[in-house]
Amino acid sequence: MSLAPIAVTAGEPAGIGFDIILQAIQELRDCIIIADKNALLHRAQHLQIPIEFCTKTPSNEHQLWIEHIATRVPVECGKLNPENSAYVLSCLDRALQGTQTGEYAAIVTGPVHKGVINEAGFAFTGHTEYFSEHTRSEVVMLLVANNVRVALATTHLPLNKVADAISRDLLIEKLSIVHTGLINKFGIQHPHIAVCGLNPHAGEQGHLGTEEVEIIEPAIRYLQETGMNISGPHPADTIFVPTNLQSVDAVMAMYHDQGLPVLKHIGFGHAVNTSLGLPIIRTSVDHGTALDLAGTGESDAGSLIAAIQLAREQVTRNNIIQNI
Amino acid sequence: MSLAPIAVTAGEPAGIGFDIILQAIQELRDCIIIADKNALLHRAQHLQIPIEFCTKTPSNEHQLWIEHIATRVPVECGKLNPENSAYVLSCLDRALQGTQTGEYAAIVTGPVHKGVINEAGFAFTGHTEYFSEHTRSEVVMLLVANNVRVALATTHLPLNKVADAISRDLLIEKLSIVHTGLINKFGIQHPHIAVCGLNPHAGEQGHLGTEEVEIIEPAIRYLQETGMNISGPHPADTIFVPTNLQSVDAVMAMYHDQGLPVLKHIGFGHAVNTSLGLPIIRTSVDHGTALDLAGTGESDAGSLIAAIQLAREQVTRNNIIQNI
Repeated sequence: MSLAPIAVTAGEPAGIGFDIILQAIQELRDCIIIADKNALLHRAQHLQIPIEFCTKTPSNEHQLWIEHIATRVPVECGKLNPENSAYVLSCLDRALQGTQTGEYAAIVTGPVHKGVINEAGFAFTGHTEYFSEHTRSEVVMLLVANNVRVALATTHLPLNKVADAISRDLLIEKLSIVHTGLINKFGIQHPHIAVCGLNPHAGEQGHLGTEEVEIIEPAIRYLQETGMNISGPHPADTIFVPTNLQSVDAVMAMYHDQGLPVLKHIGFGHAVNTSLGLPIIRTSVDHGTALDLAGTGESDAGSLIAAIQLAREQVTRNNIIQNI
Repeated sequence: MSLAPIAVTAGEPAGIGFDIILQAIQELRDCIIIADKNALLHRAQHLQIPIEFCTKTPSNEHQLWIEHIATRVPVECGKLNPENSAYVLSCLDRALQGTQTGEYAAIVTGPVHKGVINEAGFAFTGHTEYFSEHTRSEVVMLLVANNVRVALATTHLPLNKVADAISRDLLIEKLSIVHTGLINKFGIQHPHIAVCGLNPHAGEQGHLGTEEVEIIEPAIRYLQETGMNISGPHPADTIFVPTNLQSVDAVMAMYHDQGLPVLKHIGFGHAVNTSLGLPIIRTSVDHGTALDLAGTGESDAGSLIAAIQLAREQVTRNNIIQNI
């Protein structure tokens, strides 16, 4: 029996999604690309990268295994067009459906542009939220680079809504998902999760905010009593010091800009985003559409290659678990 | 004429302030320590570090130039005592007064513990705020490590108060102080300051928050029109990517945990805090009192040594400017 391929969605067609797929072609032997093949061929010709399409496992390094979904209108490098937003979402729908039925082993997503999707009239706040809704699962966004893992308690929220969104129940749910994900998807048997405070210096015992005492500490204590190795709340500006990270399997940041600046500093060019809590395996590049780099040959496929590698590891681990 | 010494305050006596001064003794030839000499001697004996006190420039590497201010009660390693909080503040008062009159060239501060000072009945939210009030100056806290500089628009505020604190006037004032400080205190002639957004992805053109469009962009435009090289608002999770930092002299973060986790990750053990906007030169260690390490010999004097070095550079630059 041949293994199911990993589905790779190319994302926003005007961005660098096509570019990084073409640059990473040698890493895609076990992948199927969900995209418009004419637009992809056009980008390949523009970048002078020789490719052929196939409909099964590639037999040479110039072949790309593709599942064609047509764009509505022709693609122009760097120029967003809301007419093609339905195409972007159709690629996601197809990848998800194929992964749920077992036709594909996992999904790796290229970058999309939320603004143009919204402009086209579709509600869309991000891949993570899309997969959460479409699988009716609570999801945690986790980014990985150099063995540093950062999970987010809240994701794409305006800063002035973050404090109100942090509740004991939310933290218990998100931390439980991270705990299970580290075991099942990363193979870490007794993971240690370090939880950040919400406020500077983790609130300094209530001098700089009360959420640590009232919400975060009780959530941590509850989970500790179930046997999980969870510590904190830690000041965010000390938990990321390298010596402190050594004993930590994942840091739970309370919000986007508390955890991601340091993770993306560490993982420049090869950081990966993965969704924990889904019934499927899903990883993603950590970057945006970089419209100004589309078609220039100057984009960096490092994050896509790392995302495929992480998906492959999770597929292998999943197969082992299912065969035990 | 001999040069004025740099005043070093030892900070909280139960913490590692004494330890790091003793460990850094060879770097202190141009410094005067403002502290209780009996408590310092006691720590030196405990750590088996031979020292002598003197009242002028040391003539050998075991001598420490000291100005004695007495604690109220004996110091116990690791045990905070509010009875000694008045002493901690007296050391700061003396250092500030001596620096304002020119007796000292600059102030380098060791770590204090805000909680115990408050417990003793004194309003105190941090060194930066103390120097701001006592010199009636608007101050910006700037941290430095490996040529990366991070300034904070707001400092020790609970997270749920940050968004309301960000105003166009505040940003114009803080950015102007950073601009002047980079020129006068760091010798950078035409500094480039990169400004973070407040919200994730810098608000995504209003999709994830409106402060960028309504407040931050107008402040940046105003300053650009005065000729300053200020860019942004940038997403905080991309501006700290190493290649993006190359062309930046300082990043202005909107709040504490947006900028400091990455700075302290980069500068572990040798990051320095400095106050821009004061009429005096002031630098500081970037760490806290580390009560559990006091008296163990395991504290790291790297940040103190880096803080003294930065103060020395600023004194030299100041002398050059005054002599032109």
